[in-house]
Amino acid sequence: MKFTVLLSGGLDSTTLLAHLIDAGHEVACLSFDYGQTHRRELDAAAHFANFYDAPHSILRLPGIFSGSALTHDAEMPDGHYTDESMRVTVVPNRNMVMLSIAASMAIQNGSDGVAYAAHADDRGTYLDCRPAFIAAMREALSLCHWEPPMLLAPFADWSKCDIYKEALRLGVEVGTTWSCYAGGSSPCGVCGACSARSEAMKGTT
Amino acid sequence: MKFTVLLSGGLDSTTLLAHLIDAGHEVACLSFDYGQTHRRELDAAAHFANFYDAPHSILRLPGIFSGSALTHDAEMPDGHYTDESMRVTVVPNRNMVMLSIAASMAIQNGSDGVAYAAHADDRGTYLDCRPAFIAAMREALSLCHWEPPMLLAPFADWSKCDIYKEALRLGVEVGTTWSCYAGGSSPCGVCGACSARSEAMKGTT
Repeated sequence: MKFTVLLSGGLDSTTLLAHLIDAGHEVACLSFDYGQTHRRELDAAAHFANFYDAPHSILRLPGIFSGSALTHDAEMPDGHYTDESMRVTVVPNRNMVMLSIAASMAIQNGSDGVAYAAHADDRGTYLDCRPAFIAAMREALSLCHWEPPMLLAPFADWSKCDIYKEALRLGVEVGTTWSCYAGGSSPCGVCGACSARSEAMKGTT
Repeated sequence: MKFTVLLSGGLDSTTLLAHLIDAGHEVACLSFDYGQTHRRELDAAAHFANFYDAPHSILRLPGIFSGSALTHDAEMPDGHYTDESMRVTVVPNRNMVMLSIAASMAIQNGSDGVAYAAHADDRGTYLDCRPAFIAAMREALSLCHWEPPMLLAPFADWSKCDIYKEALRLGVEVGTTWSCYAGGSSPCGVCGACSARSEAMKGTT
């Protein structure tokens, strides 16, 4: 089968890309330039699409998302993903926007469906990674077109530590993935994304 | 209440705008420049947003939609909306993309929800105007954020003729709305959109 994958260039989506290829699927990659602080992630996305020999589109979404620490509109908090303070990193309805555009492109490029790397450790802060949201999106997508795209979220019940282990199993260049939210040229080590990544690698999540 | 309205500048969405204002709601308008043949509709959208004194955003979505007669990628058919031939005017997953972006902006601008002018006469050709799709999108939107936007589609069970009658009741400048798909400077009179508009005005739908 063929899937259009939301690829940010972070650990989770890069591992999803490798996971689908390992399962024998054909993939097309889609990334978004939406004014994120951590635009650096798009370099990682381009690297991995090229590495896995997958077609890659980077779409600009100027002027759509705001009101989040990820788009320079609030101060980036340090700390753990599960903290209440992490809510300022929520980009309103980001996953529905990205999945709906990916679904449009999937229909156009002949994919059987779309895939994204929602996982269980994101559920607290990001509602659009929860199983109920995924099920509702799956239903809406099943009704959007004559040949509707499937919605895959194979890591929905996995911890980030499970994803890290899968990355190791698949030989993903983990060091080249980019998670940090802070917008610097090297990972800050203290933002929510860096904290979650570090804990996953220590097997503590 | 406040709603973010998908406004194309056609008869249906312009009447929806007037309908919500008549009901006492505050509105914000959102239009999309996605490479449509009938870009002329955006002039009508801007006119009506200004006429009704509503804030208006026109977002560019370059490179997302293709494969449709509405984006120059197939020949525009003459005839009636209900014809099988009209399927080439389907822009894949357009309404989900537009509604999901409208929902993101609604959360950001403090709207209580989003509204679009899906109606019963569009159901045959456009799956993303059907009640089942609307219900599934309403469910997905209810799960996307801590303060989720409502989804209004008050014309979902109306015919286009019902909408035309509502436009007359509300004094909408019907002649200034723009429906034609063909991309000319005056309505072609033979495309699906012109046919449906003409039949609605004759009370034959």
